[in-house]
Amino acid sequence: MATDVFPPPPRLLLGPGPSQVHPRVLKALSTPLVGHLDPAFIALMEETKTLLRQVFQTKNELTIPISGTGSAGLEACIVNLVEPGDEVVIGVNGVFGTRLVDVASRAGATVVKAEAPWGEIVPDDVLAAALEKTKRPKLVVLVQAETSTGVWQPLEEAVRLTHDRGALFVVDCVTSLAGCPVEIDRVGIDAAYSGTQKCLSCPPGLSPVTFGPRATEALRARKTPVQSWYLDLTMLEKYWGAERVYHHTAPISMSYGLYEALRLVVEEGLDARFARHQRNHEALVAGLEALGLSMLVRPEHRLWMLNSVRVPDGVDDAAFRTALLAEDQIEIGAGLGPFKGTVWRIGLMGESSSEANVRQLLGAFERLLPRHGATIPAGAGTQAADRVYSA
Amino acid sequence: MATDVFPPPPRLLLGPGPSQVHPRVLKALSTPLVGHLDPAFIALMEETKTLLRQVFQTKNELTIPISGTGSAGLEACIVNLVEPGDEVVIGVNGVFGTRLVDVASRAGATVVKAEAPWGEIVPDDVLAAALEKTKRPKLVVLVQAETSTGVWQPLEEAVRLTHDRGALFVVDCVTSLAGCPVEIDRVGIDAAYSGTQKCLSCPPGLSPVTFGPRATEALRARKTPVQSWYLDLTMLEKYWGAERVYHHTAPISMSYGLYEALRLVVEEGLDARFARHQRNHEALVAGLEALGLSMLVRPEHRLWMLNSVRVPDGVDDAAFRTALLAEDQIEIGAGLGPFKGTVWRIGLMGESSSEANVRQLLGAFERLLPRHGATIPAGAGTQAADRVYSA
Repeated sequence: MATDVFPPPPRLLLGPGPSQVHPRVLKALSTPLVGHLDPAFIALMEETKTLLRQVFQTKNELTIPISGTGSAGLEACIVNLVEPGDEVVIGVNGVFGTRLVDVASRAGATVVKAEAPWGEIVPDDVLAAALEKTKRPKLVVLVQAETSTGVWQPLEEAVRLTHDRGALFVVDCVTSLAGCPVEIDRVGIDAAYSGTQKCLSCPPGLSPVTFGPRATEALRARKTPVQSWYLDLTMLEKYWGAERVYHHTAPISMSYGLYEALRLVVEEGLDARFARHQRNHEALVAGLEALGLSMLVRPEHRLWMLNSVRVPDGVDDAAFRTALLAEDQIEIGAGLGPFKGTVWRIGLMGESSSEANVRQLLGAFERLLPRHGATIPAGAGTQAADRVYSA
Repeated sequence: MATDVFPPPPRLLLGPGPSQVHPRVLKALSTPLVGHLDPAFIALMEETKTLLRQVFQTKNELTIPISGTGSAGLEACIVNLVEPGDEVVIGVNGVFGTRLVDVASRAGATVVKAEAPWGEIVPDDVLAAALEKTKRPKLVVLVQAETSTGVWQPLEEAVRLTHDRGALFVVDCVTSLAGCPVEIDRVGIDAAYSGTQKCLSCPPGLSPVTFGPRATEALRARKTPVQSWYLDLTMLEKYWGAERVYHHTAPISMSYGLYEALRLVVEEGLDARFARHQRNHEALVAGLEALGLSMLVRPEHRLWMLNSVRVPDGVDDAAFRTALLAEDQIEIGAGLGPFKGTVWRIGLMGESSSEANVRQLLGAFERLLPRHGATIPAGAGTQAADRVYSA
């Protein structure tokens, strides 16, 4: 039996997720288990719902983690709200909008795409035009943080356009939650899903979702069963609610991890956490630009937690990332779709978003880029970051 | 913020799952993460597939853990193999057969039930009669280990009947895998799903599945897309195969835990592990019967890892289990369906199946049962178990 594959080497995770996990969360994961109907676990479930509501900034009763990764949360939101024939408008400007179209189509939706080039936002007029093509739209879904491109999608006008047509507004906040404001209630978002392995800095495996009053009403008014038993929120809410009706065995250890990760978020405070993400993003961008690299996304639409930067001319994308992993143990993400080979995605999510990590990455870039064929001003990246941090 | 809900109290888990988790698995869960496309993680994925094949006793290439609990594996097997209108024969003699009917119906199957009373097996003639009602059956699904009743379902003749009709044979081995023989290849099972939190003694959260050549062929011959994107094995096999096409972010920490749990299974050896489960089952049953309690299931159909015993006359089910949990920190399971309030389900799964645990449980029963209104011969349970262990 091979014994050389575990434990894996230490890595600094600065890719599109998973992010670094706090030692308190790792410790929580190793706690001996209790049963999924144990009073002690039920108390933890209750507290988890409360903490999730704080992080989502919502009062929504139906706020729970789905027992799967972010993509399971995506599918849960779609299959619980869509019935065959429903019209669904989906913003498509990257991998996750594209995935939403696939999932909604499998659920029997008539999908109308609000398309924009990868690396740009979906503009309000494009969304309005897509809504014009519908008769009676059931949902509009936008991706707040497109992890495939690093684009931050503004939501407020989109919510207004959606509600004017009587549709529900659903948001993918897999990468944004706990890293920049999501504000479910203030913005008027009807349903949202996230993931644990981004700015929550918990391992992948759970997907927090929240359903507001109008989404819950749509769920109850369904004429057909939810096509997925596993993701059926009409059943899950009975396990997570006062009735405690057995559905599936909850992922106990991951629930411990999520609980501890949420506690860390609330201890830091959302505003402080958002400011930290913004500051480290600004320092990283200053450093990258000082090295002569150019960002993919225009400044006003950049995510703080996922930074897409163009691979400098003459540098081999894969060879550089391989060297960065082998020599510096740093993971960054490759470009996807039209940006394969030409863009790197640098994640500064949750625990990964720190001054030390920004310095370490810029230092590694300064050392490795010249060796891979790029001409850069020596030390300019870390110096530019220093100026941001000392400002 | 409440801080009193974590960590939870120590428990001895002798219910229907989760089971006790080995310290090596708990330690693996707390290992710092690598990325889901890291060469180190890909090596772990490859080794995990090899170990899973050993435990399933199969050469099936498509043998992977689904990123959800056992119920996600159940749904994965159904939605990948069923297309709308397909005839599916399902053995129904407990909760999980009932669940399979629900899941298959949501996938558009025409379901024919092969029904038997809870607490009994589905007899071959009942299955044959159900098959008679079909025109062109696509699948037959039986639950090898009905966790809701403790019934062990024989499979060999059922496989023959199924294959005679040209259908695929699918098995639920959530509770049986690594506790008693499953033998995918020898028995001729076409597809199977399991869970991590039973005899594998890993926390809940992953569901190992295996698809044989005929099931894989049926998957490739589909005319309609798999209704679930998250569980679509045509996409998952590309992530777990040589192509490494990104699908969803694998649950890294749970994958570490499963890897270590599988290593423990293989280190012990399947035969030794099965023998351990059988011996502890026999000692427990001897002890319970010596105390005057009666088992629900006839001897030849009893599972080794899940023991259903009737609540003695005059004993309040819930009050007794509450006392057992509060005073002895032991969890056992309640009865379900027709056995609610009248049956206890005692799990001896994986790490939970030990001589010490059998003694501890019987000792607690001997102390608590008289206090809850049962008249039992003092010390007879532990003495009867002793005789099994010293035989």
